[in-house]
Amino acid sequence: MNRFDGVLKEMQERGLKQILICDPLSIKYLTGLMVYPGERLLALLIKANNEPVLFANRLFHITDTDMKIIWFNDQDNPIELIYENIDSNEMLGIDKEWPARFLIPLLECDSNLKVCLASDCVDDVRAIKDELEIEKMKEASRINDEVIMLARDYIKEGMTEKEVAKYISDMYLEKGAQGNSFDPIVSFGKTAADPHHGPDGTVLKEGDVVLIDMGCIKDGYCSDMTRTFIYKKASDKQLFIHDLVRRANEEAEKFIKPGVRLCDIDAVARSIISDAGYGQYFTHRLGHFIGQAVHEKGDVSASYTNEVKPGMIFSIEPGVYLPGEFGVRIEDLVLVTEDGCEVLNKVNKKYEII
Amino acid sequence: MNRFDGVLKEMQERGLKQILICDPLSIKYLTGLMVYPGERLLALLIKANNEPVLFANRLFHITDTDMKIIWFNDQDNPIELIYENIDSNEMLGIDKEWPARFLIPLLECDSNLKVCLASDCVDDVRAIKDELEIEKMKEASRINDEVIMLARDYIKEGMTEKEVAKYISDMYLEKGAQGNSFDPIVSFGKTAADPHHGPDGTVLKEGDVVLIDMGCIKDGYCSDMTRTFIYKKASDKQLFIHDLVRRANEEAEKFIKPGVRLCDIDAVARSIISDAGYGQYFTHRLGHFIGQAVHEKGDVSASYTNEVKPGMIFSIEPGVYLPGEFGVRIEDLVLVTEDGCEVLNKVNKKYEII
Repeated sequence: MNRFDGVLKEMQERGLKQILICDPLSIKYLTGLMVYPGERLLALLIKANNEPVLFANRLFHITDTDMKIIWFNDQDNPIELIYENIDSNEMLGIDKEWPARFLIPLLECDSNLKVCLASDCVDDVRAIKDELEIEKMKEASRINDEVIMLARDYIKEGMTEKEVAKYISDMYLEKGAQGNSFDPIVSFGKTAADPHHGPDGTVLKEGDVVLIDMGCIKDGYCSDMTRTFIYKKASDKQLFIHDLVRRANEEAEKFIKPGVRLCDIDAVARSIISDAGYGQYFTHRLGHFIGQAVHEKGDVSASYTNEVKPGMIFSIEPGVYLPGEFGVRIEDLVLVTEDGCEVLNKVNKKYEII
Repeated sequence: MNRFDGVLKEMQERGLKQILICDPLSIKYLTGLMVYPGERLLALLIKANNEPVLFANRLFHITDTDMKIIWFNDQDNPIELIYENIDSNEMLGIDKEWPARFLIPLLECDSNLKVCLASDCVDDVRAIKDELEIEKMKEASRINDEVIMLARDYIKEGMTEKEVAKYISDMYLEKGAQGNSFDPIVSFGKTAADPHHGPDGTVLKEGDVVLIDMGCIKDGYCSDMTRTFIYKKASDKQLFIHDLVRRANEEAEKFIKPGVRLCDIDAVARSIISDAGYGQYFTHRLGHFIGQAVHEKGDVSASYTNEVKPGMIFSIEPGVYLPGEFGVRIEDLVLVTEDGCEVLNKVNKKYEII
């Protein structure tokens, strides 16, 4: 199905006749046009029975498109142009990312205008990857696998987290990626107990865990993976927690197939960790959707009760974080297939003492 | 004046009794707390006669503060908490950056709730830098000056734009900055005719202009500067345009002092370029405000008619872009002083053939 047709179908299911999309990646997904609007307005108006219309600033350098475009300059008021093009008697669906600096002036045009959140109409189509997207996602994860092996071999006693993070970013460029999909997380020892620790001057020493959460962008699509190594000498507790987290990761992945609910995948991993007495130290959702953006709409968590479908790609990333001691997280990307899932990261998950 | 008092004064001038601020840098500016909320809600409610209240997710790791905080978890509905804490009969000022995914549910709580844009109450205070901020901005620009000189000496025939951009990013880290304030723009020859060209595989050759627009972050504050060199051999036209753009930059800077209007500074530079017959090739505003973010509220452009005040810091960056030929831009940051302005970038602006 054509991507626009998919969106129109989602609109129809929600009883919406017009939606306004502003996420540049959604606009790229639907039109092929990659625009970086910065502070300026960029919006795509999709109506049930009309050609879609793009509202674009003349500074955007948009060429080579058959799209209907309504152009404006910095001196114009694009909100008025949008208001003139919507049906003001009909509910208008709005992108979840549209900032107040545009939405409030639109509401001020007409105090009777009814709006609702509607970017799900696009996000739910984006969540199911097509063949070309799957190929790109696989390549981004292949590069990620290659670079984490290089990073593993690069790490030496006395290095700082920052040095290792920089090496990873450099290797992505050398291996043909466009760059990081997010700033790499490299955590040594105690700093790994904070799941979102930013790499700093912490120096590697014997007995530290080495938690690396990293991803790159290749051809506009993202990878994202975590592995936790142990440097030179492992404690029994480190090995126990590592095995526990790996089991949670592997059992959750085994459970995935079309028809199971996202919340139930989360529950599989969470119950393994809870049964071992570490539930309170697994402090985040099990995973998130990914594609053109590293975090796309959709979580693998208790609050997402919808069923998975073939073509969905998301992360499975259980973790245990022991304040003052260390943390372990093991993360893969998985692609839902017709009868299960394919794990896009092929590198070893069992603990390695490096 | 205390920063909160400054905001309350701005609110009073606008007849506002309550505003909701969400820009993490505004929240840092007012509370000292740097939180990266990602997709989660972070908001600061400022009321005329009450203690300010921060709405924060328990995952945010906020410690060491006397702020009144209303905490919530991923399972809670923070919009309800906000609604319970505002005066629903009073106009509520909203941050320009607040996304529809929060604003629409808040409006759905109460169809009578009146909202308006109000982040100017904070942004207009942020626009006037205090002594400590000025010191940090000067240091960020000092590093920028140092690194562009290194880049000038590094550039050799056959290098790509990407290589030079990477060198600049690396040198920032080596010189003690936290990183780029934006991805460096490095443009050789024809690619410099696009003011926002992203560095690619374009290779440097004799006769090219070398346009470099770069900035770093040091201690949470940004620098931003552009210089345009010429590689090995300059044409008369390149030298003429370079002198023209430099004159526009220098005359605009000379014109700046407290009481002049931002639009008139823009007009000074624009008329010099227009008088020479190149007005249509100067396609953007003359400058933008800068501080914790590389683009803060406020432009040096025809649409900003307010007067400059001591402590304001903004860019002055005229440019001429000749499609198919080359482009020249020369940019400094300036600090408005009691009787003029101080140019924060000290490196040479006259053309250099390198």
